[in-house]
Amino acid sequence: MSILINIPGRPLDKLITRLKQDIPEHEIEVWPNVNNPDAVEFALVWKHQHGSLNAYKNLKAISSFGAGVDSIISDPDLPNVPIARIVDPDLAINMAQYVLTMVQHHKLRLNQFNQQQKECIWKPKSARKGNNVGILGLGQLGAKTAKVLLSAGFDVSGWSRSLKKINNVNCYAGDNGFNTVVSEADYLVCLLPLTDKTENILNAAVFSKMKSTAVLINVARGEHVVDEDLIAALAPTKEQAHHLQTQQQIDFAYLDVFRQEPLPEQHPFWQSDKIQITPHISAVTNVETAVSQIVENYFLQKKGLELKNLIDRRSAY
Amino acid sequence: MSILINIPGRPLDKLITRLKQDIPEHEIEVWPNVNNPDAVEFALVWKHQHGSLNAYKNLKAISSFGAGVDSIISDPDLPNVPIARIVDPDLAINMAQYVLTMVQHHKLRLNQFNQQQKECIWKPKSARKGNNVGILGLGQLGAKTAKVLLSAGFDVSGWSRSLKKINNVNCYAGDNGFNTVVSEADYLVCLLPLTDKTENILNAAVFSKMKSTAVLINVARGEHVVDEDLIAALAPTKEQAHHLQTQQQIDFAYLDVFRQEPLPEQHPFWQSDKIQITPHISAVTNVETAVSQIVENYFLQKKGLELKNLIDRRSAY
Repeated sequence: MSILINIPGRPLDKLITRLKQDIPEHEIEVWPNVNNPDAVEFALVWKHQHGSLNAYKNLKAISSFGAGVDSIISDPDLPNVPIARIVDPDLAINMAQYVLTMVQHHKLRLNQFNQQQKECIWKPKSARKGNNVGILGLGQLGAKTAKVLLSAGFDVSGWSRSLKKINNVNCYAGDNGFNTVVSEADYLVCLLPLTDKTENILNAAVFSKMKSTAVLINVARGEHVVDEDLIAALAPTKEQAHHLQTQQQIDFAYLDVFRQEPLPEQHPFWQSDKIQITPHISAVTNVETAVSQIVENYFLQKKGLELKNLIDRRSAY
Repeated sequence: MSILINIPGRPLDKLITRLKQDIPEHEIEVWPNVNNPDAVEFALVWKHQHGSLNAYKNLKAISSFGAGVDSIISDPDLPNVPIARIVDPDLAINMAQYVLTMVQHHKLRLNQFNQQQKECIWKPKSARKGNNVGILGLGQLGAKTAKVLLSAGFDVSGWSRSLKKINNVNCYAGDNGFNTVVSEADYLVCLLPLTDKTENILNAAVFSKMKSTAVLINVARGEHVVDEDLIAALAPTKEQAHHLQTQQQIDFAYLDVFRQEPLPEQHPFWQSDKIQITPHISAVTNVETAVSQIVENYFLQKKGLELKNLIDRRSAY
């Protein structure tokens, strides 16, 4: 029997080396060049090509290589086997630090000072005033991010499907709550799970309710954002500006996730000076953490025992 | 009687407006155009021209406009009056946030991703490994910065003249302690007071002891750094590199403070792609906080009472 790695578009050397160290007696196959499909019993998956998990008649379990499972669940040809995910305790703190860094990056006007450095211009300017951070999604990552931002002195509001309670965070649920968080935020952070209800949730209607000085930080999934609407909100055409009676709807966006990754070269996001792009690095699963959990689940599956960190397909998270 | 504002090179409109609101019945004079020098009893000072405080025969007190008083104390023609400073409770958290932001900025490779965005290049790379932050100076600002970095998951060491004790921070004093902190740091943060003993403390000898991947963050005073040595350590000439048997001594520097501010246009710091400059914004005194403390001290002085937040001239902080 063997482990299949089906993780397109990412460097896999380190992962393969570490897996071979821990389970030297077991074969590792890497999609798409699989020598012996029938031997594959366990698949390690991240953003796989839909349908590509159907070739393995002895597949017994799938493990996501990260915390998210949306790109697995959404595969209409997904084999009916248990799905586990990686629970990396560092993931939440890494995510929270990424968000805090981007908030501070904007607040301290680092882009502006960077530009001024190129022109040898010394022009002190105090930090931007807005102190309200709205977090969409208050799961493990959202809750940790809320706490880190609180302790950094920000006012934090949060929205989630079911109402949460977090000390010193103004928590909301429902449509009215969503509008409150969105319209009051100086920094709007998307940490929602991707479901039918949250896809395209960040759209023109939402941007029009935001402050014109507000900043969007998307660290969840590209599918949460309607790309064209974001481009328009950041730099509306004259016609749009006239129609909306405003020059811009929001000020800036920090984006770490995209509908298609790698972000296609011709995508307008690349060229916008109102968007700062990072290539999905906000919270990368630690290989050591991942390998130990993968190996543990691999052997649990071999013994016919229940895997750890199984997910519920219906709620998709 | 009047208040003198002697703060060259900074916008003063907001400060003047606020002072006039709080003490409308008192005259405010702004150096260098002082109408009635004999009426000046109280001077509000930041980086004044040395000797320029000697023209006021009825001067009774000086207040620094910030936490630092080094540029006041170092004036050889300083009038012999009490000196107070501003103690801004937000200053320490703002400083700590600035330092954390710059550490994270480097750790997350934001400059690299910024460059790649311009070229439409998608190239994920995990965060840099180094996790050790060495803090030189463990006063109010250094201690707060240590705590914020600890809570963000960094390993923190600190050095101070007299040995301090801070939970979970490896505290050192003395020459050996200094060398330990400097040589182990992935991020070396200067938060020292400026004294005879700390001037030029960051020099070629120190840079040669640092890791070649290390980052210097100076948020204290420009005089702590020997500018030429830093330039050489970041990009040594071939001869220097041969002599030192290394390509570079340290990797990058984030500088917020400089010997001369504004940093002169011809200074080589501006052009280095190994230096990120901000124009002394890491911890700017909040005008509201400052005004309330200035007004309080102004009236204490008028009544002949002892000022709050007085400094000891001998220790200079």
